[in-house]
Amino acid sequence: MASGWFYLSCLLLGSLGSMCILFTIYWMQYWRGGFAWNGSIYMFNWHPVLMVAGMVVFYGGASLVYRLPQSWVGPKLPWKLLHAALHLMAFILTVVGLVAVFTFHNHGKIANLYSLHSWLGITAVFLFACQWCLGFAVFLLPWASVWLRSLLKPIHVFFGAAILSLSIASVISGINEKLFFSLKNTTRPYNSLPSEAVFANSTGMLVVAFGLLVLYILLASSWKRPEPGILTDRQLLLQPRPGSRPFPVTYMPVTGRQPYESW
Amino acid sequence: MASGWFYLSCLLLGSLGSMCILFTIYWMQYWRGGFAWNGSIYMFNWHPVLMVAGMVVFYGGASLVYRLPQSWVGPKLPWKLLHAALHLMAFILTVVGLVAVFTFHNHGKIANLYSLHSWLGITAVFLFACQWCLGFAVFLLPWASVWLRSLLKPIHVFFGAAILSLSIASVISGINEKLFFSLKNTTRPYNSLPSEAVFANSTGMLVVAFGLLVLYILLASSWKRPEPGILTDRQLLLQPRPGSRPFPVTYMPVTGRQPYESW
Repeated sequence: MASGWFYLSCLLLGSLGSMCILFTIYWMQYWRGGFAWNGSIYMFNWHPVLMVAGMVVFYGGASLVYRLPQSWVGPKLPWKLLHAALHLMAFILTVVGLVAVFTFHNHGKIANLYSLHSWLGITAVFLFACQWCLGFAVFLLPWASVWLRSLLKPIHVFFGAAILSLSIASVISGINEKLFFSLKNTTRPYNSLPSEAVFANSTGMLVVAFGLLVLYILLASSWKRPEPGILTDRQLLLQPRPGSRPFPVTYMPVTGRQPYESW
Repeated sequence: MASGWFYLSCLLLGSLGSMCILFTIYWMQYWRGGFAWNGSIYMFNWHPVLMVAGMVVFYGGASLVYRLPQSWVGPKLPWKLLHAALHLMAFILTVVGLVAVFTFHNHGKIANLYSLHSWLGITAVFLFACQWCLGFAVFLLPWASVWLRSLLKPIHVFFGAAILSLSIASVISGINEKLFFSLKNTTRPYNSLPSEAVFANSTGMLVVAFGLLVLYILLASSWKRPEPGILTDRQLLLQPRPGSRPFPVTYMPVTGRQPYESW
């Protein structure tokens, strides 16, 4: 039953994430003239698409690798590699998205990093870079002790969720700002809610819904990878893959702790 | 040691929260002409102050009532009443903040609820109202069963954190929008980063820092009220108040679960 809800949430998450990216592409293609890579406003149009794809959708998906029940049995290293690789993909998309906006600004002699949107966005990207490097150094390379990993794990998980929250706030302020820029001095300004405004506002609300669903799946304790020593009913249903090393566990009934306790 | 960190975090939280409110007041007073209640732009100036105070600072503080170690011993009802009363205060400030902006818009024949900032903000306020009413009905009134409360508690806690995240995204987009409005057609526009822009951007970053600190304290498992039956070392240091009824607990060593496990 819990697994059913989990996979239903994943399906919803996949649909929402795809819609976030496709809606942003459609907004830029249909109302803002499409894409180019030449320093023009059409180069800027890559910025919202790549930031939504990188900092929200790919980032959010990459965060949830350890919530897949398949990651709970067998060796953890392949899942760590997948987690790091997906986040690296998200980071590359993000950097290309930043290159798009900085090149457009520099080409048009527009100031960089003056708005609150940009301050918050660049803070989120900076934290993301620190988080990835620290995560790689401590959790993927073999030198760190169990004590150090235990100490840093809650910080890593908290900052993972915090960076996603900052990204969402940044995307919302970015869409808002873009609509004020694009629709000023037009026959149908933003405050008359033309179809572009309704569509882009809805895209922003979809981004918020996607982000909240990621945070829900991330924080719901019944969907977390149990620590070694405790195996839940849900885990017992999973078969280790052929050839994988057995997982060192002790079978213990889990009755004393309800799902709501660790919120 | 854990208590020391907790109170240090509370001190930091109080300082950040006060700064968020005082900085917003100063911004409106010094650069935007101060306050009035007459439908003018000076009436609008109440909007950012009251939304930051209500939806972020008071809301954030009210969310953390159960993290106070004093709330862990003795009857829970007074703490529930405090939690509900502080949130009600936050909600009243929020509603007055909404009255300020709607009255200003209606007086100046400006459209309401067209920007993404307003869509997100009104969604956050609507969810806050639902959350308060549902919380009052289920957790404060005596009719609900333990089963129903256990079922709804994780949803209540998740939406509590989600509403704060939406509020922060809404405040960020609101400050960004206000600066674009106020500084257009001036000798020093937003993109030249005049002192007002630096000050208001910094206020926005303070709001983000406050919100993240609230979420950290809310989600850190070692600062949560333990469920009956488990008493931590930190609780043992607390003395029940004179005349309070003893708390029905069993003393158990808590060694099997590390703080990071419930993230």
